[in-house]
Amino acid sequence: MRDAFHEDLDKISDQLVTMTTMVATALERATAALLEGDRTVAESVIAADDDIDTLRREIDDLAVDLLARQQPVATDLRMVVTAMHMSSDIERMGDLARHIAKVARMAAPNLAVPDDMRPIIAEMAAVGQRLVKATGDAISSKDVYAAVEIGRIDDAMDELHKKVFTTLLDNWQHGMEAGVNATLLSRYYERFGDHAVAVADRIVYLVTGRYGNPDEGLSRDAH
Amino acid sequence: MRDAFHEDLDKISDQLVTMTTMVATALERATAALLEGDRTVAESVIAADDDIDTLRREIDDLAVDLLARQQPVATDLRMVVTAMHMSSDIERMGDLARHIAKVARMAAPNLAVPDDMRPIIAEMAAVGQRLVKATGDAISSKDVYAAVEIGRIDDAMDELHKKVFTTLLDNWQHGMEAGVNATLLSRYYERFGDHAVAVADRIVYLVTGRYGNPDEGLSRDAH
Repeated sequence: MRDAFHEDLDKISDQLVTMTTMVATALERATAALLEGDRTVAESVIAADDDIDTLRREIDDLAVDLLARQQPVATDLRMVVTAMHMSSDIERMGDLARHIAKVARMAAPNLAVPDDMRPIIAEMAAVGQRLVKATGDAISSKDVYAAVEIGRIDDAMDELHKKVFTTLLDNWQHGMEAGVNATLLSRYYERFGDHAVAVADRIVYLVTGRYGNPDEGLSRDAH
Repeated sequence: MRDAFHEDLDKISDQLVTMTTMVATALERATAALLEGDRTVAESVIAADDDIDTLRREIDDLAVDLLARQQPVATDLRMVVTAMHMSSDIERMGDLARHIAKVARMAAPNLAVPDDMRPIIAEMAAVGQRLVKATGDAISSKDVYAAVEIGRIDDAMDELHKKVFTTLLDNWQHGMEAGVNATLLSRYYERFGDHAVAVADRIVYLVTGRYGNPDEGLSRDAH
């Protein structure tokens, strides 16, 4: 049986995973609003971001309450502090989904991105879904290899981000407004990925005590 | 004489203020690199960001160490947790200065922004300086009114951000690359301001126990 401290910590971990599922929904719906020019869906994503923010505050309150009641030290203390940092990153992912929805809303019922940019945006959104799913799984499992995999998935996001700029700078025919939208949207999806990586880095640090690829750390330990 | 806990907390607060002065320098130099097309200055800003990141880790370690040794509760605990959140926001302000320097480096020795955009960027940088200075002062003084003033200064940043988009969408003659640069730079300065506001909001919450304008809170309290 888990002691009271670890039961509370499990609860915080579960709430963080819940946050990632809310963020996954927000990103999916924001992208749908964007690609379909659907103002109603965009509005609903913007409104629902409050729920993510509220859950983040609840997690932080739980964490502070846990620190006050249980006075953890060493690794236990680090886990609580890390949970607070994670809630901050995941909340920010939700904000970025809201930003995407705002670009969709501004253009609706027209489309914010021209046809030849849609496949790249759709792919960025798909990578974003993989990232937020992997983030929830890594928080749940505390598996450093799952966490490191997040960095590899994010490499695909960075490549797509570069592809957007190549597309923009290579004889763009859709005018400045569509160009500004594509620039901002690409930045939002890319930052979404960065925050997933930040959560992953925290998991790696928590489990291994160092930043970066745990294999490098493990091989150093083996010699 | 201060007790050990408050001496340690003062030290953390001093380090946070030091971070804001490092960030102020980074923003000033990044903007100079941008407006003068100076690659060397841009490189130095990018390299110096490591020092800000290192100081942030030191502050977080100090905070965790303080939690472990002193086991604070109630307001004392909140203050330590708040300091960790602030270090995160101020580090991010440093990252944004680095992003600005990267745009400068990419274009150097040419200029990343055309002549008619320079005054707006220079003004955003000046507002950014006021914001980071006010952030350091508010951390030092824990004065909620100083913190609220940060929100007012940031309104000027938001206006400039809108002005950039108006300029971009109103018969822009400088091509897509300059347009992409202006879009990203404006976003970086605007986000810089948002993080200053986030620090300010934390100070207001710490002192008053509620978010938002303390006058509204105070007037509610008076009735």
